[in-house]
Amino acid sequence: MDQHEDANHADDVENRGELDGKEVEGPWSEILDKNISIRQPLLRTRTNMTSQIAVIGANVCPIESLDYEIIENELFKQDWRSRKKVQIFQYVFLKWALALLIGLSTGLVGFFNNIGVENIAGYKLLWTNDLMSDKKYFKAFLVYAGCNIGLGTIAGALCAFIAPAAAGSGIPEVKAYLNGVDAPSILAPSTLFVKIFGSIVGVSAGFVVGKEGPMVHTGACIANLLGQGGSRKYHLTWTWLRYFKNDRDRRDLITCGAAAGVAAAFRAPVGGVLFALEEAASWWRSALLWRTFFTTAVVALVLRSLIEYCSSGKCGLFGKGGLIMYDVSSAEASYSGADILAVLFLGVIGGIFGSIYNYLVDKVLRIYSIINEKGASFKILLVISVSILTTACSFGLPWIAKCTVCPTSLKESCPSTGESGNYKGFQCQSGYYNDLASLFLNTNDDAIRNLFSTSTEHEFKISSLIIFFSAIYCLGIITYGIAIPAGLFIPVILAGATYGRLVGRLFESVSELDTGLFALLGAASFLGGTMRMTVSLCVILLELTNDLLLLPLVMLVLLISKTVADCFNKGVYDQIVKLKGLPYMEAHAEAYMRQLVAGDVVSGPLVTFTGAEKVGNIVHALQTTGHNGFPVIDEPPYSEAPELCGLVLRSHLLVLLKAKYFSRERVLTGRDILKKFSPVDFAKPGSGKGLKLEDITFEDEEMEMYIDLHPITNASPYTVVETMSLAKAAILFRQLGLRHMCVVPKSQGRPPIVGILTRHDFMPEHVLGLYPHIKGHK
Amino acid sequence: MDQHEDANHADDVENRGELDGKEVEGPWSEILDKNISIRQPLLRTRTNMTSQIAVIGANVCPIESLDYEIIENELFKQDWRSRKKVQIFQYVFLKWALALLIGLSTGLVGFFNNIGVENIAGYKLLWTNDLMSDKKYFKAFLVYAGCNIGLGTIAGALCAFIAPAAAGSGIPEVKAYLNGVDAPSILAPSTLFVKIFGSIVGVSAGFVVGKEGPMVHTGACIANLLGQGGSRKYHLTWTWLRYFKNDRDRRDLITCGAAAGVAAAFRAPVGGVLFALEEAASWWRSALLWRTFFTTAVVALVLRSLIEYCSSGKCGLFGKGGLIMYDVSSAEASYSGADILAVLFLGVIGGIFGSIYNYLVDKVLRIYSIINEKGASFKILLVISVSILTTACSFGLPWIAKCTVCPTSLKESCPSTGESGNYKGFQCQSGYYNDLASLFLNTNDDAIRNLFSTSTEHEFKISSLIIFFSAIYCLGIITYGIAIPAGLFIPVILAGATYGRLVGRLFESVSELDTGLFALLGAASFLGGTMRMTVSLCVILLELTNDLLLLPLVMLVLLISKTVADCFNKGVYDQIVKLKGLPYMEAHAEAYMRQLVAGDVVSGPLVTFTGAEKVGNIVHALQTTGHNGFPVIDEPPYSEAPELCGLVLRSHLLVLLKAKYFSRERVLTGRDILKKFSPVDFAKPGSGKGLKLEDITFEDEEMEMYIDLHPITNASPYTVVETMSLAKAAILFRQLGLRHMCVVPKSQGRPPIVGILTRHDFMPEHVLGLYPHIKGHK
Repeated sequence: MDQHEDANHADDVENRGELDGKEVEGPWSEILDKNISIRQPLLRTRTNMTSQIAVIGANVCPIESLDYEIIENELFKQDWRSRKKVQIFQYVFLKWALALLIGLSTGLVGFFNNIGVENIAGYKLLWTNDLMSDKKYFKAFLVYAGCNIGLGTIAGALCAFIAPAAAGSGIPEVKAYLNGVDAPSILAPSTLFVKIFGSIVGVSAGFVVGKEGPMVHTGACIANLLGQGGSRKYHLTWTWLRYFKNDRDRRDLITCGAAAGVAAAFRAPVGGVLFALEEAASWWRSALLWRTFFTTAVVALVLRSLIEYCSSGKCGLFGKGGLIMYDVSSAEASYSGADILAVLFLGVIGGIFGSIYNYLVDKVLRIYSIINEKGASFKILLVISVSILTTACSFGLPWIAKCTVCPTSLKESCPSTGESGNYKGFQCQSGYYNDLASLFLNTNDDAIRNLFSTSTEHEFKISSLIIFFSAIYCLGIITYGIAIPAGLFIPVILAGATYGRLVGRLFESVSELDTGLFALLGAASFLGGTMRMTVSLCVILLELTNDLLLLPLVMLVLLISKTVADCFNKGVYDQIVKLKGLPYMEAHAEAYMRQLVAGDVVSGPLVTFTGAEKVGNIVHALQTTGHNGFPVIDEPPYSEAPELCGLVLRSHLLVLLKAKYFSRERVLTGRDILKKFSPVDFAKPGSGKGLKLEDITFEDEEMEMYIDLHPITNASPYTVVETMSLAKAAILFRQLGLRHMCVVPKSQGRPPIVGILTRHDFMPEHVLGLYPHIKGHK
Repeated sequence: MDQHEDANHADDVENRGELDGKEVEGPWSEILDKNISIRQPLLRTRTNMTSQIAVIGANVCPIESLDYEIIENELFKQDWRSRKKVQIFQYVFLKWALALLIGLSTGLVGFFNNIGVENIAGYKLLWTNDLMSDKKYFKAFLVYAGCNIGLGTIAGALCAFIAPAAAGSGIPEVKAYLNGVDAPSILAPSTLFVKIFGSIVGVSAGFVVGKEGPMVHTGACIANLLGQGGSRKYHLTWTWLRYFKNDRDRRDLITCGAAAGVAAAFRAPVGGVLFALEEAASWWRSALLWRTFFTTAVVALVLRSLIEYCSSGKCGLFGKGGLIMYDVSSAEASYSGADILAVLFLGVIGGIFGSIYNYLVDKVLRIYSIINEKGASFKILLVISVSILTTACSFGLPWIAKCTVCPTSLKESCPSTGESGNYKGFQCQSGYYNDLASLFLNTNDDAIRNLFSTSTEHEFKISSLIIFFSAIYCLGIITYGIAIPAGLFIPVILAGATYGRLVGRLFESVSELDTGLFALLGAASFLGGTMRMTVSLCVILLELTNDLLLLPLVMLVLLISKTVADCFNKGVYDQIVKLKGLPYMEAHAEAYMRQLVAGDVVSGPLVTFTGAEKVGNIVHALQTTGHNGFPVIDEPPYSEAPELCGLVLRSHLLVLLKAKYFSRERVLTGRDILKKFSPVDFAKPGSGKGLKLEDITFEDEEMEMYIDLHPITNASPYTVVETMSLAKAAILFRQLGLRHMCVVPKSQGRPPIVGILTRHDFMPEHVLGLYPHIKGHK
C-alpha cells in the first residue's frame, strides 16, 4: 500500500480522451509550483479502458460525468439563507409545470409517431396489397421494395449526417445518463429531431425495429430541452428556468421524460413509471416517484383524448385500438397443472433464446461499429443492405407458405382487405389466405396483434411459425446497430410471441390455454430473457394486453426466463452500455473491492489550490489537466496547519476567472465576491456548452494576481479515509451520486488530502488493471 | 461552534429509556480513566423527545436501532477471503428458499384468514338473517350483538394479554423497522399468533377494520421468524440459517414479507411489490425488487390454486370471487369532459376528507393511548364499548331506511337469501329490500363489493348513502387504536366508495360514468387522501377491480387527492410512526439542517477504547453507558500518533468478553482471536435476545487483564468531517442505513474523533431543541 499512499491525482472521466495511451509526464512537471503540490506522478496508462473504447470506435468524444451532489459553497449557503417563500413556491411550481409540459409533449410526440407510422406503412401496404390482388406480383415487389429501401435510406441519412447519437435504442444512453455519465450530444435538439422522424421513417420502412426505445430517448430529450429552457443554439431560451440548470434537477426531469416515453410508446402509464424506476434510473426518491406518476398520467390522458378524437376516422389509417394495444382479455384464462408445466418449459427455453439474442446482438454490434466508423456513406450502405435483406425476407418467404382455406364463421373478411388484418390474401385465390404473409406483410404492431389474437388456434401453421420465428429472430439481431433509431422491445416481443404460439401449437393436446395467451407468455419469456426486468415488464404486459387473470403465469414466466438467462450473460441494455465504454456504476460493490482500500486505487498526481490562489497557477492547472475538481487547502496564516477547505469545480473557477475579480495582494476577498455573484451565475449550461478556458484572455499582470476561492469552494465534500474499504467507498459514491470523492489520510502530520476518487477509479477495468492478481478471487 | 467541538459522546437511541430526564452526570464521572477519555460532558436532557414518548405512554421499552452497514472487521475480511464458492451458492440458494417459504406461508395464512372470516362472519350473518326473515327481530339482535361483542372481546383479550404489539395496523411499525428502528417485540412469534387470530376474530366481529394492515404485519413476522430460523423460545431453530442473522439480511426478508402480506390481502401480487417499494421500505435495490417479485408471485400462485380448490364449495361459505376481489370490468369506461370535471371535484373533496380522517385518527389515538395505558382490562373495556357502538349502528340504522321495491329483471334473488348479497330483506316484506341493511349487515368486503357493483345506479338511495357514509367514516376513526389488529385500508375504501357512489348519484344528470365506477374513484380519492401513495395504490386498485380502461381517471384522482391532502397534514402511517415516538429518518434532509454542521449536534461525553484495552475499562463502560458503538483509538506504541482505528459494537464486545480471551500483558493477540472465532459467533440474534453483561461474571484478576479489540473493530466506519453540512451527513446516514457515524476533526493535532452521530441526533426534536432560534427558518 505504501507505493500508493502518495500517488494521488484528481482525475475524471472526461480526460480519458486526452490522456489515454499518451505519455503525459511532460506537462505535469511544469506545474511543480509552490502552490500546486505534486508528489511522485504515478501515471498508469489505462490500456484496459482504451481497448474498451477502441471496440466501439466512434465514441472517442469526451464523456462527461455528472454531479448529483449539492455543491454547498458559501454562495449556495448565502442564497439558501436568503431564499424567500415565494422563490421556493416558484421552484416547486415550475417543477410541476415542467412535468406537465414533458407529459404533454411526449404524449403528443408519441401520438404523432403512431399516426405517422400507421399512415406511411399503411399506405405502403395497401398499395402492395392492391397490386398483389391484381396479380401484378413484380410491380408489387417493386413498390414494396422501393418504399422500404427509400424510407430506410432516409432514416439512415438522417442518422448518419445530422445526429449519429440518435441511432439505436437510446435506452442504454439514457440509463447511463441517469447513472451519472453524459455521452456526447445524446440529449441534443438535433438528436431529438432525428429520433422522432428517423423512428417514424425507420419503422415505416419495414425494419424489424420498435419505436419504444426511441420514444424513451425522445422523452428524455424533450425533458432535457424543456429543463434547459429551450436550446441556446436555436435561440429559444427561457431564463426563468435558471433554477433547473444543474445536474440534479436535470436528472429528475429526464427520469420523468423516460417514463413518459414508455407510457407514450405502450400506452402504459404505470408501466412507464416502473420502467423508469427499475431499468432506467439509478437514483430514486418518493417525491420523484410521484412526479413521474404525474407525468405519465398526463401522457395517458393526452393519448386517450387524441385516440378518442381519431376513433371517428379523422387521422387517416390510424384509429383502431384504444388504450390497450393488444387486447387478449376476451380469452378465458383457465389453466391447470399441465399448463403450468408447459409454461415452465416455455420459460426455460425462452430464457435461453433471450440470452442467445443478447450474445448475438453484442457480436453484431461489434462488427457494425467497425463498419459504421468508416464514415456516413458506409453507415447508409449498411442500412440499405439490411433493408434489402428485410424486404427480401418479408416479400420472399411468404411464397413458401401454402395457401390455407379461410375458416368459416369469421367476423372479419377473409382474405383481409385493409392494410392490416389477420388473413392476407397474397398470392392465394379468393377464399384462401397466406398465413405467413399475414405476419410478414403487416406492420410489426399488427403482426403482434395477429399473434396475440385469441380463439384462432389454427390460423398459423406450425411450419409458417417456424419460418417467421427464424427470420424475425435473425433480422432483429442484425437490424439493431445500423444507423437508424431502433427499439428492441418490438423485435423481442415479435419473436417471443411467435415462439410462444409455436409452443402453444406443440402443447395443443395437453394444454387448454389459448394459443393467443401462449403467445403472450412467449413474449414475456423473451422479454425476461433479454431485458431482465421483472415488475415493470409485468405491468407493461398487463397494460398492453389487459389480462389480469394471466398475471400469475406471466410473473412465473418472467422469473424463470430471467433466472435462466442470468446464468449466461447480462441484460441487453447493460451489455450495450458496457460496449459503448460508458463508465456505469453498479449498485453493488464487486466482491474483490472488499479486499482493497480507497487508498489503493487513487492515482497521481494531485493538483491542489490554496484558499487564496495565484491566477497564473489556476490557469496553468486548468490548461494542463483535464480535471474537473480541485481540492482547496487552507494554509497558514489562514489556518494553524494545512487543512482541507473543500473542493472547487473547474466550471466554477472559469466563471470566477472570467469575471476577473482579482486582487493584487494575497487577501481574502470572499465577502465582495459573495455580493457580486449569485448561484445563477454558476448554473450549469447544457452539455458541451459551458465556458471554456480558451474564451478568456489574461494579461501577464493578471496572472500574478490572487483570487479568493472560498466563496465557490464546496466546504462539505464527501470524504473517506484512505483505509476505508473500497467496496464501502464505492457504495457511498454510487448511493449519493457523487462526481468527486476526497480521500483523506488516516494518520496525522501528512498533507490533508491523499487524492480524489472519481467514477473512473471504481471501474473494474481500472481496479483489476492495477491489481491483476486479485481477479482470481472474483 | 467552539462550544460543541469538544462535546462528544457515543449515543444511541436505545439509551433513551435510561437517560431521558434523569440526571446522569453521576455515573459518568466514575469512568474518568486514562483509557476512557471524556471531555466536558455536555449532557442535554432531551425534553422534547421525552414529551413525545409520554404521549403514547405505553411505549417506554427501549427501541433498538438497526445496523444495515456491513461490519468490515478483520474477522469478516478473513471469512470473506476464505469464502468458498459452495458457501456463496448455499447463501444465495437459502435466500431464494426463504423467499419461497415466506411466499408460501403468507399465502396460506392469507387464505386461512379469508376462510376464517368468511365462515365466522358468514354464519353469524346467516343466523341473523334467518331470524330477521322469521320476524324475530329481538332474538336476531341478541344473536348479532352477542356474536359481535363476544368475538370482539376475544380479539381484545388476545391483544391485551398475549401481545399488545399486535394491536393496530402494524404497517407503521414495519415501516419503522425497515427504516432502521426495531420497536420492542414487534416481530415476535406471540405477536404473529395474535395478529393472525386476532385479525380473523376482529374482522368477523363486525368492526370497521380491515385485514390488510395486519396481513402486512403478519408477512413481516413470518419473514422474521423464518429468517431467524424459528423461535429459540419455543425450541424451534435451524442452525443453517446463521448467515441471515444480521440486520441487513433480516431487513430484506421482512421487505419480502411485507410485500407478500399485501399480495395475500388484496390478491394483488404486483401491488404488493409496489407497496413494499413505495410505502414500507426505506432502502431498495434491484436484486431485492426481483426477490420481492418472486415472493409475491408465489403468493399469487398459492392463492389461485387454493381459490380454485374452494370454488367447488369445499371451504364452507368461502368460495365466491376469484383472484379479482371487486370486479368492475363489465362496466363500460367511457367518459367525456363533463365526467372529468366531476372527477376533479370528487378528487378535491376526497382529499379533504382524507386529511380530516388523518387528523381525527391522530386525535383519537392520543386519547386512546391514555386509556390503554391504564391496563389490560381498560383495553378490553374500550374494545367492548366500540363493539357495542358498532353493533348499535349496524343493526339500528337500517331501521331508518324505507323499504325499496326490488328491481325487476335481476339475476340474483331479491331479497337476497345468502349471507352476503346486494338486496338484504331485513325488516321488509317479500319483494322489497332494505338498501341500508345491504351495506350494514354484510361483511366489509361484501359491502364494498355491493358499492362497486355496476349497472345498479338506483340500488342505493341518496339518503341511505349519506347515513352509511357518516356512520362508517366515524366508526372507522374511533375503531383504529383499540386493542385489536386493525387495518386502515378497508375502512377507508368503504367510506371512499360510499362517498364516490354518492357523488355519482349527485352528478347522475351530467355524467355518463357508471355509479360503480364512481365508487371506485371515490375509494381512490380517500386512499390518496389518507395513505398518500400513488403508484402502488393505483396498481392495487387495478388488481382489485380489473378495470384498466379507468386507469387514467384513477391516476388523476389519486394525484389530486394526494396533492390536496398534503397541504394539510402527513400520511396516516407517518403520523402514527411519529405518534409512537419511533425515530424515523426521512429520505430528505430538512432545510434548517443546511445551516448546521455535523459538529453542531454531537453531544458528549465520548467513551473510547484503545486497540488493546483493559477488561475492567470495557466492563465499566458497558455497565455505565447504554451506548452500542465505541470508537477504538490506536495509540503509541501501536501507531505514531493517536489515530482512529474504527468502531466496535457492544454486542461484539460481549461475545469477546464471554469467551474470556484475555492476556496479562498489553499485547496484540488478534491473530489468535481470528483463529478461535468465526463471524457466526458474532451473528445477531433476534431482537432482545442477545448476550447481556449481567450474564457474564468477572474475577477481579480478569478485570486487570487486556483484550485486543482489533479483530472485531470495524476498520471502515463511515466518517464525516465535523464541518460537514448536517444535511449532507443526514443524507449519508439515511442512504447507507447506518447506526453509527463517526465525526472526525477537521484540523490536525486534536484527538482523532470528535463524536459519534446516531439516528437520534438527526431527529428534528433533538436538533431544534439545541438550536431553537433556527426554527423560524424552516
